[in-house]
Amino acid sequence: MPRAIEDVIAAARDFLGERITTNVALREHHSHGQDPHKPHLPDAVAFIETGEEASRLLALCHAQNIPVVPFGAGSSLEGHVTPVRGGISLDLSHLTEILDVSQPDMDCRVQAGVTREQLNEHLRDQGLFFPVDPGTPHCTIGGMCGTRASGTNAVRYGTIRENVLGLTVVLADGTMIKTGGRVRKASNGYDLTHLFIGSEGTLGVIMEIQLRLHPIPDAISAATCQFPSLKGAVETVIAILQSGIPVARLELLDELQTQACIAYSKLEGLEPLPTLFLEFHGSKAGVEEQARQAEEIAASYEASSFAWAMDTETRTRLWKARHDVYWAVQGLRPGHKVLTADTIVPISKLDDAILGVKEDIAGSGLAATVVGHVGDGNFHTVILVPPEPDGMDRAWALDRRIVARALALGGSCSGEHGVGIGKREFLEAEHGPEALAVMRSIKKALDPRGILNPGKIFLN
Amino acid sequence: MPRAIEDVIAAARDFLGERITTNVALREHHSHGQDPHKPHLPDAVAFIETGEEASRLLALCHAQNIPVVPFGAGSSLEGHVTPVRGGISLDLSHLTEILDVSQPDMDCRVQAGVTREQLNEHLRDQGLFFPVDPGTPHCTIGGMCGTRASGTNAVRYGTIRENVLGLTVVLADGTMIKTGGRVRKASNGYDLTHLFIGSEGTLGVIMEIQLRLHPIPDAISAATCQFPSLKGAVETVIAILQSGIPVARLELLDELQTQACIAYSKLEGLEPLPTLFLEFHGSKAGVEEQARQAEEIAASYEASSFAWAMDTETRTRLWKARHDVYWAVQGLRPGHKVLTADTIVPISKLDDAILGVKEDIAGSGLAATVVGHVGDGNFHTVILVPPEPDGMDRAWALDRRIVARALALGGSCSGEHGVGIGKREFLEAEHGPEALAVMRSIKKALDPRGILNPGKIFLN
Repeated sequence: MPRAIEDVIAAARDFLGERITTNVALREHHSHGQDPHKPHLPDAVAFIETGEEASRLLALCHAQNIPVVPFGAGSSLEGHVTPVRGGISLDLSHLTEILDVSQPDMDCRVQAGVTREQLNEHLRDQGLFFPVDPGTPHCTIGGMCGTRASGTNAVRYGTIRENVLGLTVVLADGTMIKTGGRVRKASNGYDLTHLFIGSEGTLGVIMEIQLRLHPIPDAISAATCQFPSLKGAVETVIAILQSGIPVARLELLDELQTQACIAYSKLEGLEPLPTLFLEFHGSKAGVEEQARQAEEIAASYEASSFAWAMDTETRTRLWKARHDVYWAVQGLRPGHKVLTADTIVPISKLDDAILGVKEDIAGSGLAATVVGHVGDGNFHTVILVPPEPDGMDRAWALDRRIVARALALGGSCSGEHGVGIGKREFLEAEHGPEALAVMRSIKKALDPRGILNPGKIFLN
Repeated sequence: MPRAIEDVIAAARDFLGERITTNVALREHHSHGQDPHKPHLPDAVAFIETGEEASRLLALCHAQNIPVVPFGAGSSLEGHVTPVRGGISLDLSHLTEILDVSQPDMDCRVQAGVTREQLNEHLRDQGLFFPVDPGTPHCTIGGMCGTRASGTNAVRYGTIRENVLGLTVVLADGTMIKTGGRVRKASNGYDLTHLFIGSEGTLGVIMEIQLRLHPIPDAISAATCQFPSLKGAVETVIAILQSGIPVARLELLDELQTQACIAYSKLEGLEPLPTLFLEFHGSKAGVEEQARQAEEIAASYEASSFAWAMDTETRTRLWKARHDVYWAVQGLRPGHKVLTADTIVPISKLDDAILGVKEDIAGSGLAATVVGHVGDGNFHTVILVPPEPDGMDRAWALDRRIVARALALGGSCSGEHGVGIGKREFLEAEHGPEALAVMRSIKKALDPRGILNPGKIFLN
C-alpha cells in the first residue's frame, strides 16, 4: 500500500476509530454493486456517521490525491460504487436519520443512508409518502440522488429530480455546502441541486436531502390489460397519456416477461401476452372513472382483457410481481446471470424501439424479456447471460445494439440506471463532444484533482 | 466608442447587415426591462435570426472581450436585460419559429423568441397546451428559461424547470451545444439543461427549447372564495394541498388587492376581503368533485363565500383580472410607479410571512398589496412608489425588509423573477459563501472572460 493512503487511514483513525477499516471482507463487499462489472477492492472502507467526519476525511483525501467512492446500499446497476482506482469507499449506510418531517409543507429532510422503505414506513401515519420507487426497497435516498433514479411512479410523480428540494453536499476538498432549500421553486442563482443529482458521486458527496412528499391518495386502483400484440399495448399507452388520465403507474411486460411473472409470482388470470400493469390514484370516484376511461381506450386498441381491482391484496401481489421481474427472468433459465439494459426513447418511438429490440434479441440468439416504465418511454431489456465463457460478451454486445437503437431514435443510453462504467462509451454520441466538454469543465471546476469517483461517467 | 466594439460591429455587419445597429432609439429600447433599475445603453443591438449568426457574433465578442446581453421581450422585472457594462444587446425576438410539435410525445421544439401566447395559439387545434404562465402574454420562452419563470399554473404543472426537456445553447466562445433531448427523463451525465435554466444569460445564450406539453383538460372550473381573515385563506390553501386535490391554480389576493381588482376589472360579487382564486382541471365529473371538496375545506376554515363556475366567460374574466393586478394596483394611486417584490417561503410559513409583510408595509408608510401563487408559497408585494424624490428608495427599503423576512423563514429572495441586479445582495445570505463560490467557479469554467451578461447574479 503506497504511503499516501496509509497516511490518510492513520489520520482518519483519529476521528473514525475502527470505522475506517482495511478488513478484506468489508473491502470485498464494497468492491462492486449489483452489476456484472469487474469488481475492484478499495484500499479501505470508511463508515461515516456525520457530515463533519465526511468533511474531514475528504480534506485528507484531497490533500493526498486519494480517490473517494460514495457507497450507499450497493444496489447500483452500472458499476458506480466500484473503486476502479482504489482509494476509500465512503460508506454512508450509517446515516439513517429522518431529520425532520413537515406535514403542512409536505416535505422532509433525511440523511443520505435512509432507505425509501424506511422513509415510507415512517411517513405512513402522517398520510404522506415518498413516491420514487426504483424497485429495490433498500436503496438509499442518497444513492437515488446520485444516479437520478426513477421507477414505476415517475409517470405521475416525477423522478427523484422532481422530488428533491435541496441537498447538503461535501465537496472534493471537504467544504460543505447547502443547495436549494425548502421552497417549492425559486429563481435564485444556478441550480446546483440538479447539478449534483445524477452526478454519480463525481462532483460531491450528498449527505442530506430535502425531499418533497405527497399525500397518500384516498383511493388506489390497479389494473392489468392484455393485448394480442405489442403494438396495441404501446398505442394504448400513448392514448392514455394524451387523454390526460393522471395514471400513477403504467408498465409494460412483453409476452416472455408476462410468462415469467405468471410462473414466478403465481399471477392468476393472465395469459403469456403483452401486458400493461396500471395504477390509478385519486378519490374513490376518481380512480373508478380513471380505470373506466383506461378500459375504454384499451378496448379501442383491441385489448383482449382488462381487469381492475381496488383491494390492497390484488394490488400488492401485482406490484410485488413487477418488482420481482429480475428473479422471474432468472427463473426462466436457472444458472444464468442477468444483465439489465436500460434505454429510453420518445413515447412515439416506443413501438419502433421495442419491436426493434425484439429483433435484436432474436438475432443475438440470447433469451431476453422487455419490461418497463413505458409511460416515460423507458424500458429494460432483461438479458439472460448464458453460463459459457463468451456469455457476458454476447450479452454486452446485445446491450450495445439496444443502446445504439435508442440513440438512433432520439433516445438516451440510460433512463434511470446511470452512466457509471457501462454507459461511458455512449456519452459522446449522445451529447456531442462539445456538451461533453462542458460536463468535463464542470467536473474540473468542482473536483480539480479528480478524486471523486474517478473512472465514472467520463471515459478517461 | 473604443476600438474593440467598433471592430466587432464592423465584422458582424458582414453577416448581419443592418441587423446590427447603433440606432439610438433601438439602443434605448434595449437599455432596460420592465423594472425600475437604472437603464444603460448597449453599444449596439444585434437582431439574430439563426443559431449560426449568434455563434459567429459570440465568437467575435469573445475574442474582443465585449459583453453580450440576451434580450427577448424585455419584460424582465429584475434588470436582467440592462447592459450595465455596455456591449451588444443580443435581440432574439426574430427567432419565432415553432420548429416541431409532436402530438404523441406531447412535446415541441421552439426558437427562443416564441412567446407563450403564440405557442398556445398554435397548439390549440392539437388539444395540447404549454402551461407555464407568468402573466405577460408576450414573454418569450427563451426569457422564461433564463429567469426560471413560473406563474399561476405551477402548483399543478410545475415551473419552466419541469417543462423543459432540452436546449440548444450558444456558449461564450460561440460553440453551440445541445443539452437534454426529447426523452422525459434520463440518467446520462450532468444535468446541463437545468444548469442553463435560471442562469439569466450568464452561462450561455439559449437558442432553442424542447418543451413538454400537456393535454388541454376536458373540463375546467374556476372558483373564488373569500375569508374574513388572511389566516383562514392560508389555512385553506394548506388543507387543499394536503387533501391531494390536484388544484391547477391557487392564488391569494389580500383585501387591498381584491379591492383594487374589483375596481379595475369590475369583478362582481366580491367583497374587499382576502380572496382565493382557484382553478380545477380534469374530467367534467372530476372538476365538479374537486370544486366541491375545495368548498368543503374552505367552509371548515370559515370562508364567507365560495362561488364556482364552469363557463369560459367567468373564468376568462377572473384570470384576466388576476393578470391585471399590476394595473389594478397602479389604478389605486394614479401617478405612482409600482415595484413588485417576489419572495417565496415554505407553505407552513405563509401565514407568518404574509402577516409579517403586512406589518412591514404598515411600518413603511407606503401602500402595497399582497398577491401570489400561494400554492407554491410564492407571493408578490406590489408596492406603490410615491412620486417623491425618495419614493423609490423607500420602496427598495421595504423590498429589502420583505426579502430579509422571507430568508429568516427559510424562504428565498426570488420565487420566479430572478436575481438580475436587484437580488444580488441577498445571494450570499441565502446560499452561504461556499455555495456561492461553487456558482462562481461554474461561471468561470463556462465563461472565463466574463462576457455573458456581466453584472448579473453576482455582485462583482
